[in-house]
Order: sequence, then structure tokens, then C-alpha cells
Amino acid sequence: MSTKFNLAVCQLRVTDDKAANITRAEKMVREAAAMGARVVVLPEMFNCPYVTELFPSYAETYPDGETMRALSRVAAGCGVVLVGGSIPERDGDLVYNTSFVFGPGGQLLGRHRKVHLFDVDLPGLRVRESSTLGPGAGLTVVDGGFCKLGVCICFDVRFPELARLMAMAGAQVIIVPAAFNMVTGPVHWELSMRMRAVDNQVYVAAASPARDENARYVIYGHSMLVDPWGGVICEAGTDENIILAAVDPAKIEEVRARLPLLAQMRNDLYELKWKNQGC
Amino acid sequence: MSTKFNLAVCQLRVTDDKAANITRAEKMVREAAAMGARVVVLPEMFNCPYVTELFPSYAETYPDGETMRALSRVAAGCGVVLVGGSIPERDGDLVYNTSFVFGPGGQLLGRHRKVHLFDVDLPGLRVRESSTLGPGAGLTVVDGGFCKLGVCICFDVRFPELARLMAMAGAQVIIVPAAFNMVTGPVHWELSMRMRAVDNQVYVAAASPARDENARYVIYGHSMLVDPWGGVICEAGTDENIILAAVDPAKIEEVRARLPLLAQMRNDLYELKWKNQGC
Repeated sequence: MSTKFNLAVCQLRVTDDKAANITRAEKMVREAAAMGARVVVLPEMFNCPYVTELFPSYAETYPDGETMRALSRVAAGCGVVLVGGSIPERDGDLVYNTSFVFGPGGQLLGRHRKVHLFDVDLPGLRVRESSTLGPGAGLTVVDGGFCKLGVCICFDVRFPELARLMAMAGAQVIIVPAAFNMVTGPVHWELSMRMRAVDNQVYVAAASPARDENARYVIYGHSMLVDPWGGVICEAGTDENIILAAVDPAKIEEVRARLPLLAQMRNDLYELKWKNQGC
Repeated sequence: MSTKFNLAVCQLRVTDDKAANITRAEKMVREAAAMGARVVVLPEMFNCPYVTELFPSYAETYPDGETMRALSRVAAGCGVVLVGGSIPERDGDLVYNTSFVFGPGGQLLGRHRKVHLFDVDLPGLRVRESSTLGPGAGLTVVDGGFCKLGVCICFDVRFPELARLMAMAGAQVIIVPAAFNMVTGPVHWELSMRMRAVDNQVYVAAASPARDENARYVIYGHSMLVDPWGGVICEAGTDENIILAAVDPAKIEEVRARLPLLAQMRNDLYELKWKNQGC
């Protein structure tokens, strides 16, 4: 797991046309691969507007959903690890906010269902994901062969426990498909991504949709890749764009040797543990 | 615990003259009280240069140490809650990096011994606190009567577990006497203080000594008070200074109602607990 590799984040613009969103995502993944990416990341709810009431009508079921099949196909076609942002996934009676991760052979490497649903009352912005979504129950660290990727979705990153547990489970990059808004984005987006990187001495890749000022839920944008020292390596603006940079596992080791945070945790005094192995 | 109150941080300049440091600290506490502070915070190792080899020679034993007696006296004289930064404390064979907290009657309200010792190999800066210090073993949340204060010291703030556990134990303000340096300060100081506030929706008061460019260990300064939304309310520069602002518990409740992080923790999936009740 010490290979240096390029990681790309596709900050795509999401519309209400599901088929067009999928086509656009496939095109951007191919572009990212052509730029040299071996890991490509899409944003949260990239095939569907971020509107809770709409999630069920855009939902699809594994393995035959059109989005999942497209993701698997393009991952295989490009030979990349593809963290497929997230999409509404139907399983029985419930819909989840789910990230499907496919490998270079098109095989499913893992799946993360958003664990912490976004139920908030911000000024001018009331959201109740729980009105249409079910909560996930899994800690997700995917073995990509040459890398280990932790995956959590948007509001999940608010909870330091989850990032810590992913790092303890070996994640080298914490991938965060997310859609922060214009209330929380300006104050908490960069701060949160940088601090999870600093605390856990991992890379953090945050993937947002592009900003659409006319959307009901205006998304902050600013997809970014943060290094294990907390430095922002590359950052998108608000428009559709691909950002790409190298992830170097040696950098993780170097930072951990200089400032040995994980090694100096006082596990004799406190304990953080994952209780559930569901998904 | 819903009283609004002023909190002051004294960013004092520390010299190698212990008696002069104490006198200076007392003077600043009196000034802060005259400004209207009900809680006053001093920096890490405010009576002693931040040089690990020197800690034992500056150490004193509770309750008769001259620094502790001075802190108790000035807290009573001014009628304030005084978080006495930290000093080297001797107890038996060991020396600790300890914060003594005195109440408005001069009584000892609590004591925090630094739990995570600062053993690092930063570029141009190797520090081994463990060469002269023993590690604390306590989680410290002090009941100040009108407020509950969590106390941790410098490197302790690097570990999100400790801040989370203090918040879960009811801390409204997390007090961090600290002495970041010129390697970590510019990148991690503000980030860390703001993120602990955002994650736990509490105030954070970070108290640093003033910067002395001629010291062996050059300290970053920038003492600050951060609100529960992550905004920096007031910040010192690098010189000796007192900063003061209001802490409003209603603001904590408002932020927690809008963005209910603590209420939405998935305690069914993960568990963080304090195992030890030592000190």
C-alpha cells in the first residue's frame, strides 16, 4: 500500500436529468483517467438534484440500476478505482444515500450508506434527509489493491469518531462525497476537511457538485484534496471542473513519524470502538 | 449554567525569572478582572520557560508551591474563576504539566495534568516532554458555579477524543493553555481550536504565552476565543496582551438546535468512553 498514485475529483454539475447526469459523470471519469488518475471520485447525489423529496424517484436497486452499471462499466473501461459519489439506492422498503465503489475490473469493491442523516434547521434552510432516507450502519474502508480508501458521505464527516475509526482501520485517504450548502460551506467545509486530515494524518478528498445558483439547495462547491499535514493540495472553485493530485503514502508515514498522533493516543484512558459490522 | 459571562485570556510574556513571571501573571489577572472578566485563563507553563530540561527545577508541590498560592490568592482577591494555565507540578518522584483551577473564594476547583505528552520530531524541533514529565490520567471538567469548564493542555487538544469527552461531560468552554511553536502554529493552531469548537458546539479558549523570538522554543502566540459555530471572537497577536469576550450559553443551545451534532451521534454504531477516573 505504498504506491504513489494520482487521485482526481470530478466536480460535476448536477441537473434534474438523470440520464444526462450519468453520461456527464462517465465523460468526466474518462477525462480524469486520461489525465492520469488511478482513483476517481464523484460527488454526493451526482445523478439526482439534492432535494430530499426527489431521492425515491431517482433511486435504483443493486446490481441492475442504470447508474451502478454505468459506474462499473466506466471503471472497467478506464481501469480505475471509482468512488461513485453517492446515489439514492433502494433496498426493500428503504432508500439510502449510498456510495458504490468499483475496481479497475468493474467489480464492486465496497458500498457506504450514509450513516448520519442530515436533519438540520439552519437559517433559511430546513433539511430532513430522514423523511425519505434510511440510515446506513457500516464503517467503510475499501481495499483498492494499491490503496485503502475510507468512504463517508457529507454529514458523516461532522463526526470525528467516523474518520478516526476509518484511519484506525487503515484508510490512507478519507473520501468524502458531499454537498455542503451556502450556510455551512463558507465556515465549515475547508475547516472540516483539513482537520480530519490533520487529526488522522491521512489524505482527505472532498467531492462536491458544482454550484448552481438557481437550485433549491445551493451547493458550496470547492472540492479539494488535503494532505496529511492539513495542506490543501488542490481545490476547485464553484464551476464544473476536475482536480487531480498525487497521493503519496510515504507522506503519511513521514507526518506520523514527526508528529506521532495515532501512536500517542491514550488508549489506556479512553476507548473508541466500532460496535456494529452491518452495512 | 445559563449565565452569560466575560472570559479573558492573558497572553503573558514568560521569562526565566519565576518570581517575576508570577508577579506578572497576578498583575494581568487583576487587569482582566478590572475589565470585567469572571473567568481568567493563563497560558501553558507561564512561570517557567518552555524547555523540558528546566521543568523539574521550576516544579513545586501542592498546596504550598508559591505559584499555586499566588493563583489562589489573586483568584480570591479578584473574585474570579482562574484557570492557572499550567506549571510544573511535583508529586512524589514525578513532575507533571499541570493546570490548577481556583474559584472566586480561592478554593481549588480542579486540576488537570497534561495527558498527552509532547514527544515530536518536527523539522528543526525535537521535543521530549516525557524525558522530564509524567503523564496525567484524568478527564477534567471543572464546575465553576456559573459555568462548566473543560481543561486540557496543548498537545491534548490534538486528540479529538478528549474534547468530545469533555463536551459529553458538560463542558461549555474548553480551555486550552498551550504553547504551539512556529512549525505547527501557523498551520494547525487556529484550525484545531476552531474545529474542536465546531465538532462539540462549545466555546474554546486557547491561551498561549507571548512570542519571544530569542527563546530556545519560539512560541506562536495568537491566543483566541472561538464560539460554538467556529468563529474566532477575539484573537491576540504575538505580543503580551489580554483578550476578553462574552461567553453566552444560549449560543451553545442555539447552535445545537440548528445543527444537532451531539444528538445525532450514532451511539448505536460506535462508542467513545472514558475508562479511567484517575488524575
